Amino acid sequence: MMRRIVLDAMGGDHAPGPEVEGALAAVRERPIEVILVGDEPLLKERLARAAERHPGRRRGKITLRHASQVIAMDEHPGAAFKAKKDSSMRVAFNLVVEGAGDAVVSAGNTGAVLACGLFLMKRLPHLERPGITTVCPTRTGSYCVMLDMGANTEVRGSTLAQFAVLGSTYARTLLGHARPRVAVLSNGEEETKGTEVTREAHRLLAAFPDGDFEFRGYAEGRDVFSGDFDVIVTDGFTGNVALKTFEGTLRFLFETLEAKARRSRRAMVGAMLLKPTFRAIRRLLEPEEHGGAVLLGVDGVAVISHGSSNAKAIKNALFTAAHLAEVGLTPALAEGLARHRRLWEEGAEPPAKAPAAAEG
Amino acid sequence: MMRRIVLDAMGGDHAPGPEVEGALAAVRERPIEVILVGDEPLLKERLARAAERHPGRRRGKITLRHASQVIAMDEHPGAAFKAKKDSSMRVAFNLVVEGAGDAVVSAGNTGAVLACGLFLMKRLPHLERPGITTVCPTRTGSYCVMLDMGANTEVRGSTLAQFAVLGSTYARTLLGHARPRVAVLSNGEEETKGTEVTREAHRLLAAFPDGDFEFRGYAEGRDVFSGDFDVIVTDGFTGNVALKTFEGTLRFLFETLEAKARRSRRAMVGAMLLKPTFRAIRRLLEPEEHGGAVLLGVDGVAVISHGSSNAKAIKNALFTAAHLAEVGLTPALAEGLARHRRLWEEGAEPPAKAPAAAEG
Repeated sequence: MMRRIVLDAMGGDHAPGPEVEGALAAVRERPIEVILVGDEPLLKERLARAAERHPGRRRGKITLRHASQVIAMDEHPGAAFKAKKDSSMRVAFNLVVEGAGDAVVSAGNTGAVLACGLFLMKRLPHLERPGITTVCPTRTGSYCVMLDMGANTEVRGSTLAQFAVLGSTYARTLLGHARPRVAVLSNGEEETKGTEVTREAHRLLAAFPDGDFEFRGYAEGRDVFSGDFDVIVTDGFTGNVALKTFEGTLRFLFETLEAKARRSRRAMVGAMLLKPTFRAIRRLLEPEEHGGAVLLGVDGVAVISHGSSNAKAIKNALFTAAHLAEVGLTPALAEGLARHRRLWEEGAEPPAKAPAAAEG
Repeated sequence: MMRRIVLDAMGGDHAPGPEVEGALAAVRERPIEVILVGDEPLLKERLARAAERHPGRRRGKITLRHASQVIAMDEHPGAAFKAKKDSSMRVAFNLVVEGAGDAVVSAGNTGAVLACGLFLMKRLPHLERPGITTVCPTRTGSYCVMLDMGANTEVRGSTLAQFAVLGSTYARTLLGHARPRVAVLSNGEEETKGTEVTREAHRLLAAFPDGDFEFRGYAEGRDVFSGDFDVIVTDGFTGNVALKTFEGTLRFLFETLEAKARRSRRAMVGAMLLKPTFRAIRRLLEPEEHGGAVLLGVDGVAVISHGSSNAKAIKNALFTAAHLAEVGLTPALAEGLARHRRLWEEGAEPPAKAPAAAEG
């Protein structure tokens, strides 16, 4: 059966250009159906023009579904979600809820995507909060699943314990790690480090050795790339800061390198010779290559593409969505949450207040 | 007058080797006095051996001060501080408190350094908590002061507002920024983003336009390197995660580059030609070049060198300490805190509870 991926065609910063091009690229490469949701006349016209430029054979197909409204990037997520019932994003999510699609992709307002996930798809049973997940390359060539990358700025210890279950199920389903090594992000490896919230998560996870994952304690910021962990959980505030620090460091390095190369003939030649290598590294690190972030913990597959996604990023997000629907991510998550519920339900007495280690 | 810098010679991971070598290198280059504190017979012997290897002229001088105990890296900071009254670290701090030294440098247990600062030097008036500061290079060639890098895992909004005063005074004194541009680290630029704590800090700082700094709102993780801000304040948990993510990204990039270069002749030649450039970039980014972190907000100059510091890092930390004593950092901070106290004292009514934007 051809997977049906619903694409919010109006959400991204440059919509619907990259969405239309990305959908077309996807159906040329693979036998999937992409349901483009948005202003139908506009999409029809754009699609016709794009098809003229790329007349090749299609292995999949594209269908259109009209939606009269658009949620803008700078709108208040909750208010926009409530007000715009016929927005491309809501219509797209509803198609999956109604069973007319197998997964949804949006490059739109992340807060509104979260609202659609929570209020249309609904949370999976036993879960406090869904989380946004991304996948980072590591030094050993493996990948590390990180969450939450921005859905929840403030969490409880039990939320992080649940993220461990979500993340490890994702790592197993998507990356094939048999028994993922899981850690809580902290400011040091010793279990006395961290905040009250991370220490509570550490306590819950350490007291539950029979999970489908191996709890390895705390990880530090540098461990994201170390290859020593398959899953690192944190709150959405810290996750966002870590992700953007990573992006900033990359940009700083490449720009500094460029500036220095411009001032030295020798460096210029070196940089030219290394160009394919740099390109390969950037490709390794750029989110468009990995097909976007995933909203984990709602009853359906929802892939969040970066607002500034180009056609390639959209295409990869569509492939990720199709793959996650194919391998049954949602039932695997539901089962994982049910099987591990003792982890946070029984361990949930309030922790003894431990003093922060660094404060003597 | 020759500045007298007290060096905890037993604190670092490899003590006292790098401490002795670093002190010797420092006094060869500049007319400062380094007071080495630790096991006197051991230090005497190491110093004699090191001096044999480097018989050159000294512009400054080294003196020794015995201390019978050492606080280890893995000891509980508070307990070790209390128990080891004759530790090299406590003796070193006390020399500055008694006026026998102008500044102190330690590569030892950071928590214990914090305890020495708090309980021996004492906090400056009007301050809730001291913070650990580091300086990052930016794309524009300027430097950005970041704090707190690990002294306080959990803070209040008023603590961050005070960090803004500490950081901007440091940026003015050390880097010469006339009116530093200050931001609070957050997960987005809009003032509705962040945690309750960052929103409270935002509110306090925005309501106080007449500071010796310009409040620019929120900064994101990538802004550390953007050059748009001179000071970015955060709690010690987030600061530590950001710093280590930065270190991890650097290491990942250079290692990946090396691995790829090994597999391609073209890339190998390119990497060889770029070697001096890479070295220059690493130098720009490595903390040993910048002379370590500074404990801001205690009544005295205390420089924290990385535990794994080599002789060069120790030397630069000694120079930083001498410079900060020279330019009068401590009186400048005391004056800044007194002048800005209205910022957190009058603005300190509890904030209206704002919902997290991303949560709809």
